[in-house]
Amino acid sequence: MNGDKDYFDSYDDLEVHRLMLCDSPRTESYRDAILKNQDFFAGKVVMDVGAGSGILSLFCKQAGAKKVYAVEASPLAKILKDVIRVNQAEDVIEVLHQKVEDVELSEKVDIIVSEWMGFYLLHESMLDSVLTARDMHLKEDGLMLPSHAQIYAAPCSLTQLKKSSVDYWSDVYGFNMSPFAKEAMKRTKPEITIIAADQIISEPIQVLDLDLKYTDHSELDFIHSKTFISVNKTDKFQGLALWFKTDFFNYTEDKWTNISLNTSPQFPPTHWKQTIVPLFHENEENDSVEEDDIIGWELKLFRKEDSRQYSIQVEVLDPAEAEHPVPCGCQSAKCTLISALLQKEDEEFQ
Amino acid sequence: MNGDKDYFDSYDDLEVHRLMLCDSPRTESYRDAILKNQDFFAGKVVMDVGAGSGILSLFCKQAGAKKVYAVEASPLAKILKDVIRVNQAEDVIEVLHQKVEDVELSEKVDIIVSEWMGFYLLHESMLDSVLTARDMHLKEDGLMLPSHAQIYAAPCSLTQLKKSSVDYWSDVYGFNMSPFAKEAMKRTKPEITIIAADQIISEPIQVLDLDLKYTDHSELDFIHSKTFISVNKTDKFQGLALWFKTDFFNYTEDKWTNISLNTSPQFPPTHWKQTIVPLFHENEENDSVEEDDIIGWELKLFRKEDSRQYSIQVEVLDPAEAEHPVPCGCQSAKCTLISALLQKEDEEFQ
Repeated sequence: MNGDKDYFDSYDDLEVHRLMLCDSPRTESYRDAILKNQDFFAGKVVMDVGAGSGILSLFCKQAGAKKVYAVEASPLAKILKDVIRVNQAEDVIEVLHQKVEDVELSEKVDIIVSEWMGFYLLHESMLDSVLTARDMHLKEDGLMLPSHAQIYAAPCSLTQLKKSSVDYWSDVYGFNMSPFAKEAMKRTKPEITIIAADQIISEPIQVLDLDLKYTDHSELDFIHSKTFISVNKTDKFQGLALWFKTDFFNYTEDKWTNISLNTSPQFPPTHWKQTIVPLFHENEENDSVEEDDIIGWELKLFRKEDSRQYSIQVEVLDPAEAEHPVPCGCQSAKCTLISALLQKEDEEFQ
Repeated sequence: MNGDKDYFDSYDDLEVHRLMLCDSPRTESYRDAILKNQDFFAGKVVMDVGAGSGILSLFCKQAGAKKVYAVEASPLAKILKDVIRVNQAEDVIEVLHQKVEDVELSEKVDIIVSEWMGFYLLHESMLDSVLTARDMHLKEDGLMLPSHAQIYAAPCSLTQLKKSSVDYWSDVYGFNMSPFAKEAMKRTKPEITIIAADQIISEPIQVLDLDLKYTDHSELDFIHSKTFISVNKTDKFQGLALWFKTDFFNYTEDKWTNISLNTSPQFPPTHWKQTIVPLFHENEENDSVEEDDIIGWELKLFRKEDSRQYSIQVEVLDPAEAEHPVPCGCQSAKCTLISALLQKEDEEFQ
C-alpha cells in the first residue's frame, strides 16, 4: 500500500479545500470574526495570506473592506481569479499569484487575515510567511487576524484505542495475533485523531502563547515545557494530547466582538482533530494513575532544519525527582503538600 | 495538508495489516482456497511470499502442510515470528526474514501462495517477486495460488460524483465557487474509489489475462487494449473503471474446489475498491450516450522505469473512425450493422 499516496493524492487538492470549507468551526470562526466586526472592516485595506478558495477575502469584501489583496502562490490562483470574477468582486479583491515574500505593494495594509494553522498549530504551517507579510506590509497600528495563538497539552488515557487493538488481534480467524497488539502499544509516533473529552485526565497546560503582532520567527524554532500536575480522575496516563486555540481579538477597539477557534477535545471536532503522542510503559500496570496523583512530563517540539516539520518528543518525568513541581491549586492533600514543600524551598533559598 | 502523510503514516503499518485482514472477501477467498482443498495441501511444502501477518501460512498449516516457508523482507518479520510462536506453529512454519530473491532452499516447493495484488492488480504490486520465487523455488508440477489474474475495464458514469461537486461549489456560505467544480471536472487522474454496479454502462472488457504459472515479467511492462463496445443503458460516458479478479484454480486436480476473488463493482467491496480514470469532455453535453451507442477507447498501462508504479492513459476513440470495431454480439441494430460492415470489409480485403 505504501507509495500509493504520492500518485493519487495530488488529485485531491480541490477536495482538500472542500474539506476545509466544510470544517464549520474553522470557516465560521473566521466568518464571525470578520462579519461581526464589519464596522472595523469598512473602508479598510486587507491582505489575505494563502487565500486558497478565496472565502476569507470574500468575507472581507462583504464586511465592507475597500481593498483585499488575495495572495496565493499555488496554481490554485487561477481558479481563485475565476471565483472572484463570478462573484463580481474584482473591484475590491485583487488576486496576487505570488509568494507573499515576493509581493510588492504601494500601500501598507490595515489588516492581515490568514488561515495558516497546521496540526498542533505549527506542523507544516505557513506562519513564517504570515509573519514576513506582517513585517513587510502591515501598518504599525495594523491588526493580525487571528491575533493570538496557543498550544495546549494534556495527559490522556488511550484505553478504548488499546482495548480495541488487544481485542482484535487476540483472535483473527481463530489465530492468536497478539504480538501485533503488543507491538502497537510500543509505538510512540504522533497520531492525528479525535479523542473524547473524558480521555483527558488533568487540566490542560498552555505550552506556547503567541501574540502574532509581535511574534518573532525564532520563537517557532523550539518549544519546550516541563510540567508537573495533579491528575483529576482515576484512569490511565497513556499519552499526551496536543491541540491549539487561536483568538481574533482587537484590544484597541471598544466595539470589537471577540471570537476564538478552539480545537480542544471539549469543543466540536475540526479537521485538525487532536495530536496524540502515545507513551510507552514497559510494564502495562505502570500507566495507572489515581485522582490527585502528581504526574510529570517534558515536551519538546523542535523544527527540523530547512523544514516546516517538527519533531515532537515527550519524556515522562518522575514526580519524586521534580525540582520545582507546579501545584495546580486544587486543594487536594498532595497539591497542598507540594505547595508547602515549594514554599519551604523558597524560604531556604532566600 | 501536504507532506503530513510522510510523517504520520509510517505509524500505520500495523493498521494496514488490520485493514487487510478485515477485508473479508480478500482473506476469506484465500482461506477457502486453502481450507476447502485440504486434501491437496496435506503433506505439501509451501512458500508464502510476503507473509505479512502470517495468516496465509497459518491457513496452510491448518490445511495440513508439512512445511511452510513464510518469506517476509520487512522488519515485520520479527512480529511474524512471535505470531508463529504463540500459535505453536514453529514445527511447520519457518519465517525467513529475507527478500524472496535472496532465499536459498535445499528443496523445491509444491505450492507458492501470495497476496501480492495492488490497486487495479498491478499498482505497486509485488508480482515480480512472486514470479522470481516461482522460477527459483517451485517444482515443475507445482501450483501457484492464485493461479490466474485478470484486469477488467468498463466505461462508467460519474453523475453522482459530479452532481455532488457541482451542487456543493455552487453555494459556499453564499458565494459562487463553481470554478472549483469546473476545475474538478477537468481532472483525469486515476482515483481509488468504490462505484455502484449501475454506474457501469457496458459489458466489462478483459484487458489482461495472466496464467501465473507461465507469466513472464515482460508481460507486466505494457498493457494495451483498444475497445469498441455498445452501451447497454442510456447514461453518461464519463470515466473508465478498472478492477481485477484472481482465481485459485488447479486444473490437474479432480477434487479441487475453485475459488475466485472478484473486485468488480458487482461484488462486495474490498480495500482495493475500483480504480476510476475520469474522462474530460470539453463540452458537457458530449458525455451523454444512448443504449446501443457504440463507444470506443484506448487504454494503456505502462510501467515507469525502475518503478513498481504505472502510468494509466485512456483516450476516447471516435467509433466512426474505428478500423475494426468489435461488435459485442448483442443483436442490436447498431451491433448488427457493424458486424455486417466488418464482414463486408473482410470480403473486400480477400
